[in-house]
Amino acid sequence: MNSHIISNIAGLIGTIRETGPLIHHITNYVTVNDCANITLAIGASPIMADDIEEAQEITAISQALVINIGTLNKRTIGSMIAAGKRANEINIPVVLDPVGAGASMLRNKTVSGLLEQIKFSVIRGNMSEIRFIAGLSATTKGVDASETDLEGGTPNGIDTAKALANKLGCVIAITGATDIISNGKQTTCIENGHKMLGAVTGTGCMCSSLIGSSCGAVSDYFLAAASGILYMGIAGEIAFEYAGQKGNGSFHTAVIDEISKLNAETVHRRAKIYEA
Amino acid sequence: MNSHIISNIAGLIGTIRETGPLIHHITNYVTVNDCANITLAIGASPIMADDIEEAQEITAISQALVINIGTLNKRTIGSMIAAGKRANEINIPVVLDPVGAGASMLRNKTVSGLLEQIKFSVIRGNMSEIRFIAGLSATTKGVDASETDLEGGTPNGIDTAKALANKLGCVIAITGATDIISNGKQTTCIENGHKMLGAVTGTGCMCSSLIGSSCGAVSDYFLAAASGILYMGIAGEIAFEYAGQKGNGSFHTAVIDEISKLNAETVHRRAKIYEA
Amino acid sequence: MNSHIISNIAGLIGTIRETGPLIHHITNYVTVNDCANITLAIGASPIMADDIEEAQEITAISQALVINIGTLNKRTIGSMIAAGKRANEINIPVVLDPVGAGASMLRNKTVSGLLEQIKFSVIRGNMSEIRFIAGLSATTKGVDASETDLEGGTPNGIDTAKALANKLGCVIAITGATDIISNGKQTTCIENGHKMLGAVTGTGCMCSSLIGSSCGAVSDYFLAAASGILYMGIAGEIAFEYAGQKGNGSFHTAVIDEISKLNAETVHRRAKIYEA
Repeated sequence: MNSHIISNIAGLIGTIRETGPLIHHITNYVTVNDCANITLAIGASPIMADDIEEAQEITAISQALVINIGTLNKRTIGSMIAAGKRANEINIPVVLDPVGAGASMLRNKTVSGLLEQIKFSVIRGNMSEIRFIAGLSATTKGVDASETDLEGGTPNGIDTAKALANKLGCVIAITGATDIISNGKQTTCIENGHKMLGAVTGTGCMCSSLIGSSCGAVSDYFLAAASGILYMGIAGEIAFEYAGQKGNGSFHTAVIDEISKLNAETVHRRAKIYEA
Repeated sequence: MNSHIISNIAGLIGTIRETGPLIHHITNYVTVNDCANITLAIGASPIMADDIEEAQEITAISQALVINIGTLNKRTIGSMIAAGKRANEINIPVVLDPVGAGASMLRNKTVSGLLEQIKFSVIRGNMSEIRFIAGLSATTKGVDASETDLEGGTPNGIDTAKALANKLGCVIAITGATDIISNGKQTTCIENGHKMLGAVTGTGCMCSSLIGSSCGAVSDYFLAAASGILYMGIAGEIAFEYAGQKGNGSFHTAVIDEISKLNAETVHRRAKIYEA
Repeated sequence: MNSHIISNIAGLIGTIRETGPLIHHITNYVTVNDCANITLAIGASPIMADDIEEAQEITAISQALVINIGTLNKRTIGSMIAAGKRANEINIPVVLDPVGAGASMLRNKTVSGLLEQIKFSVIRGNMSEIRFIAGLSATTKGVDASETDLEGGTPNGIDTAKALANKLGCVIAITGATDIISNGKQTTCIENGHKMLGAVTGTGCMCSSLIGSSCGAVSDYFLAAASGILYMGIAGEIAFEYAGQKGNGSFHTAVIDEISKLNAETVHRRAKIYEA
């Protein structure tokens, strides 16, 4: 499987750059600039529109929708639901980034409402967020995964991802030291990336934007999820090699640089992906 | 005309840096940090305030107002109109950046409402956005100009800009591979810039902030529009020369660097501006 | 006093990095990404949540709350008050950044309301903002300190800070060419920093986030305020030394780099702090 999936992930970069899919984001105001720039860097085209009066219309001209609840507020929850429903109607993929799920009743209630009303193609979160969605006890520490949840480690994560993917009928992606992607039948792990990605805000959000960009260019959302995560991981690794010593700001810039320069050859050379 | 206008554009940098005009922005949350930083980099002072309870008051202490509809929402439309009217009353310039005009009914309706109620000094957009405002058929692709609209090319763009400038009594600026600025009587084209500017979000918005900063320092808004666009074009060119190979993130940083270091000598040496 | 306080400030960096306090921000959308990144860079963990339905709950899991009124709007004023009250109830520190106080009735009214209903641990602003809060005549120029207010200079600033600290029973920090920190009894001045910090938006906001991060790790808020300001000043100085010539964008990145690399040894070597 590995060499086959690596080839597909490597090849998808060219497809995104050639087709330039429009990716509608309803996202948070903390990392939105990075989300737009990473979307452009991989070759897709971002549009951010969150007012209820235009959300559905913008979704209708897009190739994928990314919903990110990072700075959730009542004004945009309705827009998320309306846009998600429209995406389902016209059969374009919807990616959910459940930032901070488990950290407040509002986030929990909203995630539940979104899951009830929208069919997602991919849900990407950290271990705490995904455990929360899976109905397991999660000990969220704000928007970062808690130590306790990480202690469970990869084996538990694989089971959680598989079970939740089967339950929701969508791809579940858990990002962390080892990333886990499952559609219930296939499950894959990625060991690219660098822990310094956790020292810059929005690397998770950007990863979701890369998944959205990939979903906008291919109909295999398992492949798309693995692609977005692998792209981010490789960019983080390379960025760390030459910019890590400079500090967080330079590393942040370097991550976007590396996504914009990423090519199939680098993916083939760097990919650390294996079937779980 | 060229050497005269180039001297004026070159000289305006010093005026902005000496007078430090306060530029009120009601703008989108995607690129707002870049808008503030580019305004500071050229020597003006940004203030972002979008609540209806303070918008007019902030406009009243400012030297120019920039209205950007990038992430339009119902909360701020009223603030845009109130601030614009106040700007008209006290006779300070108003710049409109009609981001994504043509992409949704909400944007179209809002642009129409703004044009009815506010007298703008400069409207800056891409070809699709300006064609939409001119009532021509435009095929918007989200917030970027469509290929189809660009095919029409410069000659059509000049006619569109002239006609619309005459109709609305304001300066029309169409940015693209060739930039076109017209006040109906005078029309000028600029061929500075680099296509990599399109790979970073907010370079259009930043250009509008530079136009706003220029408008806040000089009463000739045709000159101000040409200045803002030329500054951005030259910064983009220089940034590409040394940072383009590094990637999108470094290029983004370099554009802001170059605006902060821009001086009259560089404008004289680099300007590619001609009468249309 | 100096060597003692310097040792404490230097040592606090390690404490922040070891304890990783969660810092709840209700802040503006202009500089929010920088606030999150600087919080991570010093070793704390940011969470931005401004909806009234979750603000109190997020405060309740945090170690400090930062309220910044940079882009004030009616939707979030209630959230600020609710979160601040909850912080007071559970006895976690609250930092106020009264951005643009004096520039509009809305800001003035909101600051008054916040001061009436919330007990702050630290208020950090520029001279115009603090003079406004102190009830002195201030001539605000948007969100930057006015020349007139700065002419008063340090001696007046010290009196203002002391008197206001005693009146409000909290630490007052005035940042400028010389920074002044007072809790009414102790007053200290810092002469680190570089004027280029004023050419990048959000360096004041980031300073408040550093103060918040420090407050989340130590119970002496006078020390915390001095620490946040000294960290920012030293980072600005070092950043200027190697990135100042490159321009505003590179300097911006370098400031975040230097906070992420800051250590006790650098604080000991660079600190210019003296008792007033």
